[in-house]
Amino acid sequence: MAKEPRPVEELTIWDDAKAMLRKARAEGIQTVHDRLDRQTPHCKFCELGTTCRNCTMGPCRVSEKNPLGVCGADADVIVARNFGRFVTGGAAGHSDHGRDLIEVLEAIVEGETKDYRITDENKLRAIAAEIGIETDGRPVMDVARDVMECFFADFGSRRKEVSFLARVPQVRKDKWAGLKMTPRGVDREIAEMMHRTHMGCDNDAPNTLIHAARTALADGWGGSMIGTELSDVIFGVPTPKMSTANLGVIKADKVNLLVHGHNPVVSEMILAAAREPELLARARELGATGINVAGLCCTGNELLMRQGIPMAGNHLMTELAIITGAVEAIVVDYQCIMPSLVQISGCYHTKFIDTANKARFTGAIHFDFQPRTAMKQAREIVSIAVEAFARRDPGRVDIPGEPVEIMTGFSNEAVTAALGGSLDPLVQAIASGDIRGAVGIVGCNNPKIKQDSMNVKLAEELIKKDILVLVTGCVTTAAGKAGLLVPDAIEKAGPGLKKVCGALGIPPVLHYGSCVDNARILQLCAALANALNVDISDLPVGASSPEWYSEKAAAIGLYAVASGIYTHLGHPPNILGSETVTNLAVSGLEDLVGATFFIEGDMVKAADMFDERIKTKRKALGLGE
Amino acid sequence: MAKEPRPVEELTIWDDAKAMLRKARAEGIQTVHDRLDRQTPHCKFCELGTTCRNCTMGPCRVSEKNPLGVCGADADVIVARNFGRFVTGGAAGHSDHGRDLIEVLEAIVEGETKDYRITDENKLRAIAAEIGIETDGRPVMDVARDVMECFFADFGSRRKEVSFLARVPQVRKDKWAGLKMTPRGVDREIAEMMHRTHMGCDNDAPNTLIHAARTALADGWGGSMIGTELSDVIFGVPTPKMSTANLGVIKADKVNLLVHGHNPVVSEMILAAAREPELLARARELGATGINVAGLCCTGNELLMRQGIPMAGNHLMTELAIITGAVEAIVVDYQCIMPSLVQISGCYHTKFIDTANKARFTGAIHFDFQPRTAMKQAREIVSIAVEAFARRDPGRVDIPGEPVEIMTGFSNEAVTAALGGSLDPLVQAIASGDIRGAVGIVGCNNPKIKQDSMNVKLAEELIKKDILVLVTGCVTTAAGKAGLLVPDAIEKAGPGLKKVCGALGIPPVLHYGSCVDNARILQLCAALANALNVDISDLPVGASSPEWYSEKAAAIGLYAVASGIYTHLGHPPNILGSETVTNLAVSGLEDLVGATFFIEGDMVKAADMFDERIKTKRKALGLGE
Repeated sequence: MAKEPRPVEELTIWDDAKAMLRKARAEGIQTVHDRLDRQTPHCKFCELGTTCRNCTMGPCRVSEKNPLGVCGADADVIVARNFGRFVTGGAAGHSDHGRDLIEVLEAIVEGETKDYRITDENKLRAIAAEIGIETDGRPVMDVARDVMECFFADFGSRRKEVSFLARVPQVRKDKWAGLKMTPRGVDREIAEMMHRTHMGCDNDAPNTLIHAARTALADGWGGSMIGTELSDVIFGVPTPKMSTANLGVIKADKVNLLVHGHNPVVSEMILAAAREPELLARARELGATGINVAGLCCTGNELLMRQGIPMAGNHLMTELAIITGAVEAIVVDYQCIMPSLVQISGCYHTKFIDTANKARFTGAIHFDFQPRTAMKQAREIVSIAVEAFARRDPGRVDIPGEPVEIMTGFSNEAVTAALGGSLDPLVQAIASGDIRGAVGIVGCNNPKIKQDSMNVKLAEELIKKDILVLVTGCVTTAAGKAGLLVPDAIEKAGPGLKKVCGALGIPPVLHYGSCVDNARILQLCAALANALNVDISDLPVGASSPEWYSEKAAAIGLYAVASGIYTHLGHPPNILGSETVTNLAVSGLEDLVGATFFIEGDMVKAADMFDERIKTKRKALGLGE
Repeated sequence: MAKEPRPVEELTIWDDAKAMLRKARAEGIQTVHDRLDRQTPHCKFCELGTTCRNCTMGPCRVSEKNPLGVCGADADVIVARNFGRFVTGGAAGHSDHGRDLIEVLEAIVEGETKDYRITDENKLRAIAAEIGIETDGRPVMDVARDVMECFFADFGSRRKEVSFLARVPQVRKDKWAGLKMTPRGVDREIAEMMHRTHMGCDNDAPNTLIHAARTALADGWGGSMIGTELSDVIFGVPTPKMSTANLGVIKADKVNLLVHGHNPVVSEMILAAAREPELLARARELGATGINVAGLCCTGNELLMRQGIPMAGNHLMTELAIITGAVEAIVVDYQCIMPSLVQISGCYHTKFIDTANKARFTGAIHFDFQPRTAMKQAREIVSIAVEAFARRDPGRVDIPGEPVEIMTGFSNEAVTAALGGSLDPLVQAIASGDIRGAVGIVGCNNPKIKQDSMNVKLAEELIKKDILVLVTGCVTTAAGKAGLLVPDAIEKAGPGLKKVCGALGIPPVLHYGSCVDNARILQLCAALANALNVDISDLPVGASSPEWYSEKAAAIGLYAVASGIYTHLGHPPNILGSETVTNLAVSGLEDLVGATFFIEGDMVKAADMFDERIKTKRKALGLGE
C-alpha cells in the first residue's frame, strides 16, 4: 500500500521548491522525495555498513549474532572495506574530472583545439613555479607543456608524492609520511584501495582506513586541485561579481538551457555558443527574447564563479527546475545527475542531452564532446535547445518567485587582491579576533534532510559567532537564497566579522566555487599555516557538510580531516556497524592526524562545537578566544 | 538455533579435506563451510545485484514492486554499476600485483637490491622487442630500464593502448577501438570505472559494461601480463618438472612453512632462505629433519611452476592445512587469504606472518617486505617458523594421505620448446583434429560447491573429447589430486589427444601457472590467431571457471570474453536482477565481441556446450568437427 506523501513543507525550506513539488504532485510526476519514501525503511545491514558483496562466497551480512562473513571477515573489516571503496568512488570522480582538464590543456598545447586557450598565463606561470618548473623567459606553451606532463605524472606510479604537496606545511607532510599516508599517484591510490578491499587482502580496519585517507588526500591535493587550478588557467581565475539564484532565474520569455554536472569544459562552450548571433536570431525567430543559460549544481558553480551565470538551484532543485515547464534543454556532463531527470524531461518538451562517454543516460540525446570539436558541438546542442522552444506548452509553465541577488567569485587570488595583495590582513583579523576562525560549509542536499535547513542554519549560526564561512557546491545556492551571499548579510554577523567584511564590502559568507574547488580552501588553509609557521591542524578552522549525500563528499570530508581540519557531518556514513571504524573516525584520528569527524544533526550544537574547537585552537596559538 | 552441519562428504571430493574437516569439528574449529551455513540464506537483493550503497540518499533495494532507487536508478543501472565495481576490484588486484613486479625491476635497475636479479635476459630482450624497445647490442640494464619505464607508463594516462596490445590480432584491436573498449592505462580504466559508477554518472547499463570490459582488458593484456612476464624475467621462465600435491606434502618430521597469496616476490626469497645452511642447522637442532616450503593458492603456483615446490592445496584447503597441526608458519602476501586463517593459526602453534603493507591482518606478525631488505627479512621469517617447531604439539598432528605426483611448468616458451621451437605442430594437431580445441579451466573454489567436483569433472569430460585443457590457479591442485597432471593421464583422454600428448610425453591437462598467468593463455590464443591469420574469436577455444568466487575471476572471465573467448561460469555473478545485463552477458556480447559467457552448473552439459562451440569454430575454419 502506498504511503501518504509527506507534506511539502517538511521537504524543503524554500518557497520555489514547495511550489514545484505541489506542481509535480498535481501533474503526477514522481520526485526524489517520493522515491525516498518508497525506499524507507532502508536495509539495516547496508546502513550499518555490515553487508559484504566483494565475492560470491557471499553476499554476507554480519551482526553480533552472526559476526563473521564466509571468509572470516568481521564487522570491522567489512565496514572499513566498504567505506574505503565509498571514499574511492568520490576520489575517482573528482580526479577523473581533473584528468579531463589536463587533456584539454594537452589539446591546447598540441594545437588540436582553438576553442580552448590559456586564458590566465600568470596563473599558469605561478602554478609552474610552485611545482618546480622553470618559467623565466620561457614561452607560455613550453611552460604549459611541462605543467601538463607534471600533472599527468601525478596520476601515475612514479611519484613519491603528488606535485601540490609543495603547498603543504612540512610538519604535516612529515606526519603523513610517518603514517604511510602521503599520496603518491592519484590513480595508483585508487587502484590500490580497490586491491586492498579484494577478498583476502587488507584485513586490518585501521590500516584500510589509513589508505582511504591517502586516497582522499590524492583527491584533495591531487585530482581536485589539478582540476581547479587548470580550470582557472583555461577559463580564467574567478573574480567577485554579482549574480542571482533560485528558480526565478528561469525566464518565461527566453530559451532556457540548464547546465548540470561538474566540469566547465562543456558548459563554457555552451555558454559561448548561446551568445552567438545566429543562435540568438533563431531564438527570436521562434518567439523567444533570448537564450538564458542557467546553472545547476557544480557545473553551475563553475560558470557562476567565472562568468556570473544565474543559478537555478542545487541538488534537490534539479528535478524541480524541469517541472517549471520552461526548460528547453538540460545539458549534463557528469556526477550527481539523477537519472530521474531523463524521465522528468520526458514529461515535458525538455531535451536531455548528455555529453560524456563516461556518463551516458539511457534515453538521452548523446554528444561525445571533444576538445577538437567543442564549439561545433556546443552550437548543435544550443540549437537543439532553441528549436525545443517551439514545442514548449505555455499552459504548463509555472516559474515561482523572484531571483535573489548573490555575490560570487571568491578565488584565493581574488581574496588576496581584495586584501591588498597579501593574506596578512586576514591573518591580522584572525589574530585580533575580529574574525575568530573560518569554516567551510560544503556539499550537497539529501532528501533525508529538509532541504537546505542545515546548510543555511549552520552558516547563520557561525557568522553570528564571528566565524567566517566559505561555501562551495550545493551550499552555494542555499546560502544565496537565504540572503547570506551579499554584503548586506553582515547585519546577520557578529560585530567583528561585520566590521571586517563591511570594510571590504564583501559578504560574511564567501562563495568559493564548486565541490572540486574545496581544493581552494585546502590551499588557503595551507597558506595560512605557512604564514603562521604552524600545522594546518593548529588553525582555528573547520569544515562541514551538513546535508551531504555523495561519495565525493565522503572523500572531501576525509581529505579535510587528514589535512588536519576538524570536520562536521550532519549524518554519519554507513560505518556505524563497526565500533573500531566509528571510534577511529570520531576520535582516534585526532591522535593520528590532529583532527576528527564529528556527527551532529542539530546545527546550533554543531556551531557550538566549532566555537569550542576554535577557542581551543586560538588559545593554543596564543590568541584570545 | 544452530543448524546441523552438513556431512563432510557433501563438502569436498577429497579424502585429505574430509579428514581435516572431521578434525576441525572434533577440535571445535569453525571453517569456511560452517560460516557459509550461518550466512545462508543470503540477502536476495544482494544476490540479484539490486542493492545500491553508492550514496547516502540510500541504501536502496530495487525490485519489480519498487523499481527505482532514490536517485532514479533502475535495476539495470544498479546491477551494471555493482558488476562494474566488482570487476574493477579484480582488475585492480591483478594489476597492482603487476606494478609490484615493475617496482622490483626498478630496484634491480637502480642497483638497490642484490636479492633480486634479471634471471632470464633472453625473455627480457624478447619482451622489449615485442613492445618496440631497441635491444640490439644494448647492455641488459639499459633494456631493462626502458622496459620498466614502458610498463610504468602502461599504468598511466598517456597511453592510447597498453603495450602488450602489440600481441593482439589487428582485427580484434579494431573491434575494441570501434567499441571504445581499447584499454589505455591500467589505473586509468580502474579510476574511470569508479568514477562512472558514482551517483549521477554512467546511467546506461550497456555503456557501463563496455567500460567494465575495457577495465578487464587492462588487467588481462596490461597488469596481469606485465606481472607474468616480469616474474619470468626476474625469477625465470617455467620449464616442465615434477612435483607433488595434497596435504600429504606437509611433513611430520620437518619445519613446515606454507606460502600463500599471489606474488612470488616474497615467497621466492622465503624459499631461498629456507635452503640456507644456518637455518637448516637450527631446524635440525630443534629436532626437525629439514625445512619444507609448500604452497597454497597462487603464490604456491608461482613457486611450483618455477621451483617445483610441493602444493599443499587450493583455496578451500588453506584452513585445513593449518588443522594438520604440523604447520609452523603460514607466510602470506595478498589476495584470497581468508582472515579466518589468523584465528585458526591461533588455535595451534602456527605463526601467521603477513608481509605487505597493503594486506595486513589484525593479529598477524607483520613484516613490511621490501626489495632492498628482502633476503634479510626472509631469513627472519624462516627463523620464526623454525623456532615455532619447538612449540608444535605432536599429539595434535594429523597429516592425511600420501602426496600425488604432478607435472608442472608449462609456460608458452616451454610448450614451444617441447614442440621443437614453434607452435606449428600444435596448429597442425588442431588442423588434423587430433587436438580438436583447447579450454582453459581457471579460478577458485567456492564453498557453495562441493570442493573441486566441477573443476575435476569438467577437465575429465573435455579431455575425453580430445580437447586440450590448460589449468591455472586453484584448478591446478584439483586437477593434480585427480591424477590429471601426469603423462599417464592420457589414458583418460580421447584418442587424438592421447596420441599427441603421448608422443610429447606430456599430460592432457597442462599446468599453466597462477591466476595472473591466465595472461599466458591469452598470449597463446593471440599467437595461434596470428599464426592462422584469424581473430581470437575464430579459434576452437574456450575458458571456464567452474567454482569461481572472487572479483579477480570475474575480471578474468570478462577479459576472456572481450578477447573473443567463449567463457563458462559454474554459477552466475550477482547480476540476475537485471535482464539487460544478464542478456548482454550471456548473448548480446556475441555480436559485440564475438563471444559470451555461459552459465552451467552441470559439467557434462558444460563440456557438451564447449564441444558444440568448438565444432562450429572448426567448421568455420574449414576444419573437420
